[in-house]
Amino acid sequence: MPATYAYLGPEGTFTEVALRTLPETATRELLPMVSVPAALDAVRAGEAEAAFVPIENSVEGGITTTLDELVSGEPLMIYREVLLSITFALLVRPGTRLEDVKTVTAHPAAQAQVRNWMKAHLPDALWESAASNADGARLVQEGRYDAAFAGEFAAARYGLVPLETGIHDADNAQTRFVLVGRPARPAAPTGADKTSVVIWQRDDHPGGLRDLLGEFAVRGVNLMLLQSRPTGEGIGNYCFAIDAEGHISERRVAESLMGLKRSCLKVRYLGSYPRADITDAASDALPSPLSGTTDAEFVAAAEWVARCQDGRFPD
Amino acid sequence: MPATYAYLGPEGTFTEVALRTLPETATRELLPMVSVPAALDAVRAGEAEAAFVPIENSVEGGITTTLDELVSGEPLMIYREVLLSITFALLVRPGTRLEDVKTVTAHPAAQAQVRNWMKAHLPDALWESAASNADGARLVQEGRYDAAFAGEFAAARYGLVPLETGIHDADNAQTRFVLVGRPARPAAPTGADKTSVVIWQRDDHPGGLRDLLGEFAVRGVNLMLLQSRPTGEGIGNYCFAIDAEGHISERRVAESLMGLKRSCLKVRYLGSYPRADITDAASDALPSPLSGTTDAEFVAAAEWVARCQDGRFPD
Amino acid sequence: MPATYAYLGPEGTFTEVALRTLPETATRELLPMVSVPAALDAVRAGEAEAAFVPIENSVEGGITTTLDELVSGEPLMIYREVLLSITFALLVRPGTRLEDVKTVTAHPAAQAQVRNWMKAHLPDALWESAASNADGARLVQEGRYDAAFAGEFAAARYGLVPLETGIHDADNAQTRFVLVGRPARPAAPTGADKTSVVIWQRDDHPGGLRDLLGEFAVRGVNLMLLQSRPTGEGIGNYCFAIDAEGHISERRVAESLMGLKRSCLKVRYLGSYPRADITDAASDALPSPLSGTTDAEFVAAAEWVARCQDGRFPD
Amino acid sequence: MPATYAYLGPEGTFTEVALRTLPETATRELLPMVSVPAALDAVRAGEAEAAFVPIENSVEGGITTTLDELVSGEPLMIYREVLLSITFALLVRPGTRLEDVKTVTAHPAAQAQVRNWMKAHLPDALWESAASNADGARLVQEGRYDAAFAGEFAAARYGLVPLETGIHDADNAQTRFVLVGRPARPAAPTGADKTSVVIWQRDDHPGGLRDLLGEFAVRGVNLMLLQSRPTGEGIGNYCFAIDAEGHISERRVAESLMGLKRSCLKVRYLGSYPRADITDAASDALPSPLSGTTDAEFVAAAEWVARCQDGRFPD
Repeated sequence: MPATYAYLGPEGTFTEVALRTLPETATRELLPMVSVPAALDAVRAGEAEAAFVPIENSVEGGITTTLDELVSGEPLMIYREVLLSITFALLVRPGTRLEDVKTVTAHPAAQAQVRNWMKAHLPDALWESAASNADGARLVQEGRYDAAFAGEFAAARYGLVPLETGIHDADNAQTRFVLVGRPARPAAPTGADKTSVVIWQRDDHPGGLRDLLGEFAVRGVNLMLLQSRPTGEGIGNYCFAIDAEGHISERRVAESLMGLKRSCLKVRYLGSYPRADITDAASDALPSPLSGTTDAEFVAAAEWVARCQDGRFPD
Repeated sequence: MPATYAYLGPEGTFTEVALRTLPETATRELLPMVSVPAALDAVRAGEAEAAFVPIENSVEGGITTTLDELVSGEPLMIYREVLLSITFALLVRPGTRLEDVKTVTAHPAAQAQVRNWMKAHLPDALWESAASNADGARLVQEGRYDAAFAGEFAAARYGLVPLETGIHDADNAQTRFVLVGRPARPAAPTGADKTSVVIWQRDDHPGGLRDLLGEFAVRGVNLMLLQSRPTGEGIGNYCFAIDAEGHISERRVAESLMGLKRSCLKVRYLGSYPRADITDAASDALPSPLSGTTDAEFVAAAEWVARCQDGRFPD
Repeated sequence: MPATYAYLGPEGTFTEVALRTLPETATRELLPMVSVPAALDAVRAGEAEAAFVPIENSVEGGITTTLDELVSGEPLMIYREVLLSITFALLVRPGTRLEDVKTVTAHPAAQAQVRNWMKAHLPDALWESAASNADGARLVQEGRYDAAFAGEFAAARYGLVPLETGIHDADNAQTRFVLVGRPARPAAPTGADKTSVVIWQRDDHPGGLRDLLGEFAVRGVNLMLLQSRPTGEGIGNYCFAIDAEGHISERRVAESLMGLKRSCLKVRYLGSYPRADITDAASDALPSPLSGTTDAEFVAAAEWVARCQDGRFPD
Repeated sequence: MPATYAYLGPEGTFTEVALRTLPETATRELLPMVSVPAALDAVRAGEAEAAFVPIENSVEGGITTTLDELVSGEPLMIYREVLLSITFALLVRPGTRLEDVKTVTAHPAAQAQVRNWMKAHLPDALWESAASNADGARLVQEGRYDAAFAGEFAAARYGLVPLETGIHDADNAQTRFVLVGRPARPAAPTGADKTSVVIWQRDDHPGGLRDLLGEFAVRGVNLMLLQSRPTGEGIGNYCFAIDAEGHISERRVAESLMGLKRSCLKVRYLGSYPRADITDAASDALPSPLSGTTDAEFVAAAEWVARCQDGRFPD
């Protein structure tokens, strides 16, 4: 297995910055790919050990692409997630002043984060979209635009300087990235984990999705994300990508997944891995499981049923 | 263990008739008791192997008593049920004509079954209640009343004759009886079984009962009976007696019971036993389990989760 | 309309005592009837303004009879409920001592309340059932039994004396009685009301009952009682008698009933009336409605939808 | 109000093609905008009557952007939707042969649709992303790349020729576009409509989302789309964009929305409009409403409750 991590390139984007927060990258070759599908294909083809791609709350696009790629094709699994706070810098060629900026560029997804700032500081500048924020910086270097919104870290790579930093319309703007590999044993439970799964409904009827969510609800498993994704069989045909609290090694999660497996046309397990939003599993940030849903209570209930089956102590 | 079956007496009631439909009564001593609690206490005290008592759709009373007795006290379990069609005869002393009947008696519960008939044929007769239908027959024998509604089989015992037979306001009037013993291994599954259980809610809130019923619903288990019963802690405090389709040896039933055990303050298992309303388990009368709820599907789902936990074939 | 209240007789039972707690009985003729059906028929036939009968937690039987009578036949409605604490006296002929008591009698339902006391104080006495507790007292007067369990108030009527009072195995033993009349406008809401209804399922399937209970749950209406009752079409065919918190004039209750009406084969409304277990509607005993279920919130939501339908202020 | 429709530009993309399927575009000025936010801002600012933007199943990106823009900011409403089948052409400068193509470009979202075709026909070509498919075509015109994937209709505009047409990995690849305007009365119901709404949960707990979906399920309203979207308050804070079958003028939909309004922290109504996937409302393609959920049944149920409130005909 090659000691290589593919990632959504080019170099100098937020994805690379997030990837480098993983300690093991010190001993891996990091391989920028032109697209999320290309990065995941490298894993499927055995050319990379894992792929690192954005999956949520994009400032660089590619998010639904990531989900759609995980949903279809050869199965892959998620082993890690990383959260990165996103703020932009306005990168210009040395010597450019704010009043000189007539044209700006960035990936389209960046626009949602910088729109208010632009209205206030560059109300007359013309926006044009770039294929990535890094590509926008390159186009400024080439003189095609006056300024690019990108991560401050991209300045040096393209010979630019940050005219303004810390630009972000929404506080708490973050992107979530995942490290994806071929199916293997999930990471060990930490006490603050999430489980990702994709479900395809057997048929579609009023209450159908509610009943599938009931598989989690009756076992006290909270949902963190629910995303309908097209199945590729035309508009109106969806599967659902779900992130649930907990690890498949916990009985409440395992039994919920069993319930989905029985009730759905198809289920794809995408992995159980540590939550990046909880840094200290022992902290108060994590609510304790609902009464009746701990592993100990599952075990006790199974033992009670076994006793009833034997006619011993039925209450 | 004494080869004795206690039953709700006196002799000559529908209960005795129903009891004698069980083949094993040929080799048992049958012991009439003055009340349902007395019959069940005989089992708890080891004085009887089992007790045979009415539990539903009374023509002789004692029904809620039966449930209440099973719900509290030393645990007992149900091993058999018997359905008996109920029709009444009008029993009189020999020589009495219909126009001679001025007073009639029977257990109060009989009145619901004979009211319309009385309006049509004995509009002016005076009704008085008896402690049991057999007791009513005895009171006619003693000359206290002119006629008694009772089973036709009771006539000979009390020196009476049936003036009219087949009296029943409701077609399909039936009483359900159960054979109750000390906890032991349930009867083997037949393919057409029911499981009885009593649950106490952990707390009471809107949707609370709906969510507990959801433990059955998400696993495709149909309910046959749901009865709230007082807990003995004052009006407004109930437990729920539930009859569900299926046998505790079936996984959909076992997992439902596990879910109740985890979610409820207390659960008492009352047994799994053959349904008396389905005489041929292979017949079309029994709907096939919902898709996703067969034992085979439970096993397959559990195996799939085990594979996911190992990182093999996650879809 | 006759100023007459029929009630379950005979005189001298707990039912009469409960009935006399209603102030208006001072100006009504009170008419004891031989059975619950007879009392209700008197109302249906216009011979009585109302009938007063036990409906729950029997010490005198007749309970399921009451429900069954309300469920079928010409519609009736509940206008009041009364709770009565039940304790028994042991009534004997003057001069009888406890050691003289060899035979005791009472209605069968009383046995559940006095069994433990009998074990402790009359372990060898023989129990025989009577048609009512008052009838048991009469039989003691006639010398047929040595003692009767009945309300202390029954002693004088039958020339007996209480040898022991305050007998009750369960603390908080209560019976609930209802005052039933022909359909008319329900009692005005008091802030602490309940609504009674009977539902017949359109068809029976796993989750069917849960979904019907969902009509209440999604509108934050708590259930106080749920009782399956036979429909008279054979064992296994049930309707459900439901007591829910709140008054039909409240929108959360009215919309729940609308939902049932649409979803069920049949619904019978049995009335909205003050709760007898809450004496002070303003007290803390009554939980406040769930967020989103007050009348004000229903009105606000309806107004919002109306605005959306007009294209004004859609959020 | 200006007779102008803004749309996601540039000219020559699938969006423009879809927009021109609307008859009224013959009498409107069509204004290409650099981004979805820019198009919607033009409506909010009163500079355009409506904006036409892709919302689902992207081949041009901008999809989650569209949802996020509708979810926040000044309220807007959807009045129409358009479905467009997506197939790509490989556009080259005249004279280029397939074996000459060493570099290709397109919007990143196109890659999912052409990946398999590329593997088969251009296995060695280098992919680079463009800001839009039209922009990719322009870059081919400028000689920067050898070929671009874009709509065949874009060829003429950029002086290119289609070397191959009908390229689409997934059959039924479609994009859904919406016509968005300021809030006003929704389009009249056609019998085959959908209703879009965004909900914010009051709090997050196991079963919370299931219960909100229950507002639709208990009223027999089927869901067509469910999409969690970040609220902008950090990863893990979502609202849910929902498309439901039916029109707000239908009672089952109106009552569902009322239920959400009462139960949710916030609801934003995004409009009711004709479904583009059902061309003939009378066709068999549309399932009839569940029993109990037609307007007639809602009216009948409301009338029944009103009768009960008056004490007339309670069943």
